[in-house]
Amino acid sequence: MSSEGVKEDCLGWAARDPSGFLSPYKFSRRTMGSDDVSIRITHCGVCYADVAWTRNEHGTSKYPLVPGHEIVGIVKDIGSSVQRFKVGDHIGVGTYVNSCRECESCNDRQENNCEKGSVYTFDGIDADGTVTKGGYSSYIVVHERYCFRIPENYPLALAAPLLCAGITVYAPMMRHKMNQPGKALGVIGLGGLGHMAVKFGKAFGLKVTVFSTSISKKEEALSLLGADHFVISSDQEQMKAMAKSLNFIIDTASGDHPFDPYMSLLKTGGVLALVGFPGEVKFSPASLNIGMKTVSGSITGGTKDIQEMLDFCAAQKVYPKIELIPIDYANEALERLIKRDVKYRFVIDIENSLK
Amino acid sequence: MSSEGVKEDCLGWAARDPSGFLSPYKFSRRTMGSDDVSIRITHCGVCYADVAWTRNEHGTSKYPLVPGHEIVGIVKDIGSSVQRFKVGDHIGVGTYVNSCRECESCNDRQENNCEKGSVYTFDGIDADGTVTKGGYSSYIVVHERYCFRIPENYPLALAAPLLCAGITVYAPMMRHKMNQPGKALGVIGLGGLGHMAVKFGKAFGLKVTVFSTSISKKEEALSLLGADHFVISSDQEQMKAMAKSLNFIIDTASGDHPFDPYMSLLKTGGVLALVGFPGEVKFSPASLNIGMKTVSGSITGGTKDIQEMLDFCAAQKVYPKIELIPIDYANEALERLIKRDVKYRFVIDIENSLK
Repeated sequence: MSSEGVKEDCLGWAARDPSGFLSPYKFSRRTMGSDDVSIRITHCGVCYADVAWTRNEHGTSKYPLVPGHEIVGIVKDIGSSVQRFKVGDHIGVGTYVNSCRECESCNDRQENNCEKGSVYTFDGIDADGTVTKGGYSSYIVVHERYCFRIPENYPLALAAPLLCAGITVYAPMMRHKMNQPGKALGVIGLGGLGHMAVKFGKAFGLKVTVFSTSISKKEEALSLLGADHFVISSDQEQMKAMAKSLNFIIDTASGDHPFDPYMSLLKTGGVLALVGFPGEVKFSPASLNIGMKTVSGSITGGTKDIQEMLDFCAAQKVYPKIELIPIDYANEALERLIKRDVKYRFVIDIENSLK
Repeated sequence: MSSEGVKEDCLGWAARDPSGFLSPYKFSRRTMGSDDVSIRITHCGVCYADVAWTRNEHGTSKYPLVPGHEIVGIVKDIGSSVQRFKVGDHIGVGTYVNSCRECESCNDRQENNCEKGSVYTFDGIDADGTVTKGGYSSYIVVHERYCFRIPENYPLALAAPLLCAGITVYAPMMRHKMNQPGKALGVIGLGGLGHMAVKFGKAFGLKVTVFSTSISKKEEALSLLGADHFVISSDQEQMKAMAKSLNFIIDTASGDHPFDPYMSLLKTGGVLALVGFPGEVKFSPASLNIGMKTVSGSITGGTKDIQEMLDFCAAQKVYPKIELIPIDYANEALERLIKRDVKYRFVIDIENSLK
């Protein structure tokens, strides 16, 4: 669909070039299809992807670029065939808004692994050839398959980080059966993803140890997030004391880091689930083979897992820790995110600040 | 137990120093305990471990060193408490002859992962403080827990390679559910382990592709071992044509090799099981995360898996390809093994050549 003749009634904030600087931008959304849901966005989480894409770190960015893929809001219109939503419902959208719906992955509701490639929520090329625009905006139109019900009792602002940070750790945790009370989990890195891994770990009844390079995170990890232990990863004595003690590790660190020291902490048959993007993954084969250990990767999750996670978070009262910010703080928020100066996720208060 | 006063009635071939050169050597075995089985050795497979340990590649070798941990033979005596064997039975011993029998791994019959360390069949320190001596010898005394029944119809010479090469690939194949007919398996490297992976793969009903650096292996891989496809791993066009086509890879290569090209061949959720020991394992996190792939390690297998494998091989007529050699060919065999000049496993004909 072309935007010719269509009213540019969507207000967003867009980057215009690789400086990544965001400023107000008016554009049109597609007209509603029969399976589409139109969502008045109330909140949008701030993910590192918003930095990477607005600054063209992958060399593929198409400007103007409206970031944001942790979207929550309220249904304002539905297409004639929409089954699962009605006007007024609380609703969420994550990192993708379309997929082929035909391949094995899509049939398994693992649309994040769609064989033709899922369509990213922003800077993606949708089936109609248009470039997708994300959640730093007033509303969005999405096929209902890629929308999620936010339980009524769950605060909308807190739901936003679940749609990327939350599912990114929840999906591998469930896949590798980490929801076994009494088992021991290590979490590497305490950012948006890591703090959710701690919260899910505690909700699953795990003993959770946080590994960080920074002692400054200790107090909060233990008292605010409820972790059981805190280890400075550079402290060889502390690391040694943890040898062969963990069933699972969630590695959220995207900075370069050695893997052998962490793999030595795993018990026989232990699993390190990688969700970060360090420069490379490198370890000795002995670290893997001795004790038949596993290193497994993951990106976000499928639509079935996302809905399950949202329902789990509501039932178990699992809430991200957020800093709620107005849209005109977005540029500063991205700068602070680069410096890892956030506890633990920025969420933009779209409904009260985007005018 | 000390060897004082005990008759040195066991004839073996031992290395005396890190030259690794093997020559005849008389020594004593321990006296029989109530749970022990005494085995007249008929055959012993030749594993690369025999090279590594006789030449002190790990710096831990204790001389004289009698190698050999793919042992088969006939029961010649049993202790008073032995339940599972009687004199005359066909029997096998693999890479370990003892373990703590108390830890979680031992309780799971994953004795290869014993938390206190399993006792290796040669050059290990047994519970009584003695140094274990392997299967290049006339007989051995082993606790029955670490002995396996060789089905009567299974040729003894062919059973030998199953005890290390066989179980090393069988165990991860079962653990990662590779026994699903119709799925696609890649096998990297076509030595002792690789050729067994091909044979198990075919027995499981898989489509098997062999990856090798050497075109010379093509004909045999396809016609003799029954692989479905053969790919020269340095041929980028052939590799590209296999993109996202494999459910599983068994990587038996101990030479250094890149991992990213192979991981690109895995389907979503695919597993690369490492059983070799290259210098390092290194790949891009994208190779792992995109398509939620898994890299998992393994060494040999537990006693339950070993017995299961032997019974499977007998039932399905899965037979290793071997070169039967006399004991006085052992030094040359080790030299040829270093040059990878063997199809596909040397087995020493102990009963007819060790006098």
